[in-house]
Amino acid sequence: MDDTDAAPHWTPDDFRRYGHAAVEWAARYLETLEDRPVTSDVEPGWVRAQLPASPPDAPEDFAAVLADLDRVVTPALTHWQHPGWFAYFPTGASGPSVLADLISSTLGVQGMLWSTSPAVTELETHVLDWMAELLGLPDRFRSTGAGGGVIQDAASSATLCALIAARWRAAGDGPFDRLRVYASDQAHSSVEKAVRVAGLHPTQLRRIDVDDAYAARPDHLAELMAADAADGLVPALVVANLGTTSSTAIDPVAPMADVAAEHGAWLHVDGAHAGAHLLLPELRWIGEGLDRADSFCMNPHKRLLTNFDCDCFWVADRRPLVAALSVLPEYLRNAATESGAVIDYRDWQIPLGRRFRALKLWFVIRSYGAEGLRRHVRHQTALAQDLAARIAAHPRLELSAPHPLDLVCFHHVDGDEASEALLARLNATGRVFLTHTRLDGRFVLRASVGTQATEARHVDALWALIDALA
Amino acid sequence: MDDTDAAPHWTPDDFRRYGHAAVEWAARYLETLEDRPVTSDVEPGWVRAQLPASPPDAPEDFAAVLADLDRVVTPALTHWQHPGWFAYFPTGASGPSVLADLISSTLGVQGMLWSTSPAVTELETHVLDWMAELLGLPDRFRSTGAGGGVIQDAASSATLCALIAARWRAAGDGPFDRLRVYASDQAHSSVEKAVRVAGLHPTQLRRIDVDDAYAARPDHLAELMAADAADGLVPALVVANLGTTSSTAIDPVAPMADVAAEHGAWLHVDGAHAGAHLLLPELRWIGEGLDRADSFCMNPHKRLLTNFDCDCFWVADRRPLVAALSVLPEYLRNAATESGAVIDYRDWQIPLGRRFRALKLWFVIRSYGAEGLRRHVRHQTALAQDLAARIAAHPRLELSAPHPLDLVCFHHVDGDEASEALLARLNATGRVFLTHTRLDGRFVLRASVGTQATEARHVDALWALIDALA
Repeated sequence: MDDTDAAPHWTPDDFRRYGHAAVEWAARYLETLEDRPVTSDVEPGWVRAQLPASPPDAPEDFAAVLADLDRVVTPALTHWQHPGWFAYFPTGASGPSVLADLISSTLGVQGMLWSTSPAVTELETHVLDWMAELLGLPDRFRSTGAGGGVIQDAASSATLCALIAARWRAAGDGPFDRLRVYASDQAHSSVEKAVRVAGLHPTQLRRIDVDDAYAARPDHLAELMAADAADGLVPALVVANLGTTSSTAIDPVAPMADVAAEHGAWLHVDGAHAGAHLLLPELRWIGEGLDRADSFCMNPHKRLLTNFDCDCFWVADRRPLVAALSVLPEYLRNAATESGAVIDYRDWQIPLGRRFRALKLWFVIRSYGAEGLRRHVRHQTALAQDLAARIAAHPRLELSAPHPLDLVCFHHVDGDEASEALLARLNATGRVFLTHTRLDGRFVLRASVGTQATEARHVDALWALIDALA
Repeated sequence: MDDTDAAPHWTPDDFRRYGHAAVEWAARYLETLEDRPVTSDVEPGWVRAQLPASPPDAPEDFAAVLADLDRVVTPALTHWQHPGWFAYFPTGASGPSVLADLISSTLGVQGMLWSTSPAVTELETHVLDWMAELLGLPDRFRSTGAGGGVIQDAASSATLCALIAARWRAAGDGPFDRLRVYASDQAHSSVEKAVRVAGLHPTQLRRIDVDDAYAARPDHLAELMAADAADGLVPALVVANLGTTSSTAIDPVAPMADVAAEHGAWLHVDGAHAGAHLLLPELRWIGEGLDRADSFCMNPHKRLLTNFDCDCFWVADRRPLVAALSVLPEYLRNAATESGAVIDYRDWQIPLGRRFRALKLWFVIRSYGAEGLRRHVRHQTALAQDLAARIAAHPRLELSAPHPLDLVCFHHVDGDEASEALLARLNATGRVFLTHTRLDGRFVLRASVGTQATEARHVDALWALIDALA
């Protein structure tokens, strides 16, 4: 046979040429980002209406495809990297991270087994140990002992994996109907989703009451668990929030660990966003008690300049996780796995396949250095504190919750309608984007500071808008 | 406040400069790929031994980081894009796909809700409709009706979502102990993993016997389901393989659909690898019966030149999926969602966050055109058929299974030991990499043809090695 009928593919030199064009496009996007409105005003269906109903039969020029990014895509984006982004939480996309992902895509390797690319697994284990050191995590989460870290796509998946490991430790292969899970009503929606996915009934999730600061009350947790145990039920998992999504409330991990230990329940600490603040010695108090957690996660793809997806998930004991998730078909058997000397990360996650994601975390840590990462988090936190002080001093605004980190929740003194109107007016400027939540039933604006591009002047501009519109 | 204490970030112009350097590195990797051994001979621990035990405190130059790719990473990779790659299945990484991912990383947007970036959702829905057209899928999988498509990270996740939707349709919030799942013993390990993750007991998975071609036997499926129904159990899900991982065996979807329908069970068709062959009119017979499936998946990140992760998952009715996975906290509420006029893909998958993955599929389809994609699949399939013919004619080799597509399973006539020795000798050359499986207990070599870079001459070289070493 010959290749007469083969499809034409790009040569490496084509890749070089078009690659440079793509980099130019990306650099121009970044250069013009600030001039764009943060949010798009397209109506549902607008994007699809710009596209042909059927796929093209013949190849199109790469230049035409790139041009369509400007015609169809960017007008219909919510620009998460915009300096006026104060919505949800930020999602990282620093240069080193983006280029590491380019390398990862080019290599196109799979890290499901150590043997399918040793560098993918070992760099991941190593960089997760680095992160544990940077965050001051307890030794039990290092790979040198029974524990270790792994990259998940998202904190949702880390929560699900924690639940599955906890479920296995409490009840093996089942039945699971007597198991109970505990989390505050401020916990992320992924806890409820994980409970459903894992086949538990929604009523198997118990809600811990929160205090005035929206943090879980350990006394109520103790009460719930004791009552369940007395009923012959099995407390299997406690989820503590190291920074809730609504208001970055910090659950008291240490006393929750005491209660969990009393009942032999797995303690998972969800630090998806706020976990990055453990980088700072002055904020390390938020993690007090982590030395008794069974698992912990935080997302470099939020505050730590790394593009999605990159959730770091550590377990103190990897055996229940691996035991619960390991299925080894013949076609994946190999000498390295059978030697027991290697980690096969497919057993630490839900899917089988996995990208080379450690590369971007490695690039980010080396390009910023520990000191650069600390400066980034410290500066953004200071910007948030500065904003909070201005809000506190405003006669028609009130802070809605403690703001120990980089999120400020506030409301209008005239009530929900005024707060909703303020949010709508702010977002309608196109210069900033904020989202909302409810705390104690009250409609509350969330100002999450900020993206990599957010500087002091952008927070000043946000404040000027708030002041003018409140 | 000012930015005196802020961390130094790259300017767009820095991004441009370093981006061009990264593209050069990537192009050189592709240029030199063929000269490298396909697999690495590093020992466990080698990669970590090259790295400092602690992260750097100060920033490092990007050039130093890039240089370490050559020092630490590439020597410890299994090169999945190598033209001598005949292992597992290929994983796509065409130029257009890699550059689309670069754009996606730069944009750093989230598609969890329509409103968090309309283009992410609409392009995904649109491109999945395009794929449905390209593959000749039934109309019920198009977004124009009750169904539609979504991109999952991997087929494992598609299987899990299918199970969760099926579970919901059969039993709502539970209990689930009477549900039963059916798949052949040739089904991918992800079926068993999904059963475990979803909280079903391993015994709730029934194994359908296979015929001489390793395809599920509908008569045995009927027997199993009837017996379970008679016992008061609830047949919830049937998984049919459109190409098994071991040997690309094609389960007969049409008669399996008849049986599933009789018991009201959800029929999921797993076409992870082989589904791409539906592009070819001459192979469309493999999907006969898909018009009665409840869900279907195939991975452009395998045969279709798109880099991981990109699994296309279609459902005929999106309601059970969304009902099973929807949790809507206040902080995600928005007008577009409440209008009901948009899709929020977070409800179609396990995690909340999601990257802009439709971009790479869009770039690939447009850059190759439907005709280019068909030529690619047709040519690789022809190369495999050519290899199979040579194996069949060899006095000391036998084909182990039918080979309708791009995978050839074969063994040595002298038995397992000779087959294992042949595989070891082939892989020891460093010029090719094949993996193995077991069929009917027999050790079998798998030659999966091939990657984007694999040309006729590489298959000739593989054959020369097989011929010399058998």
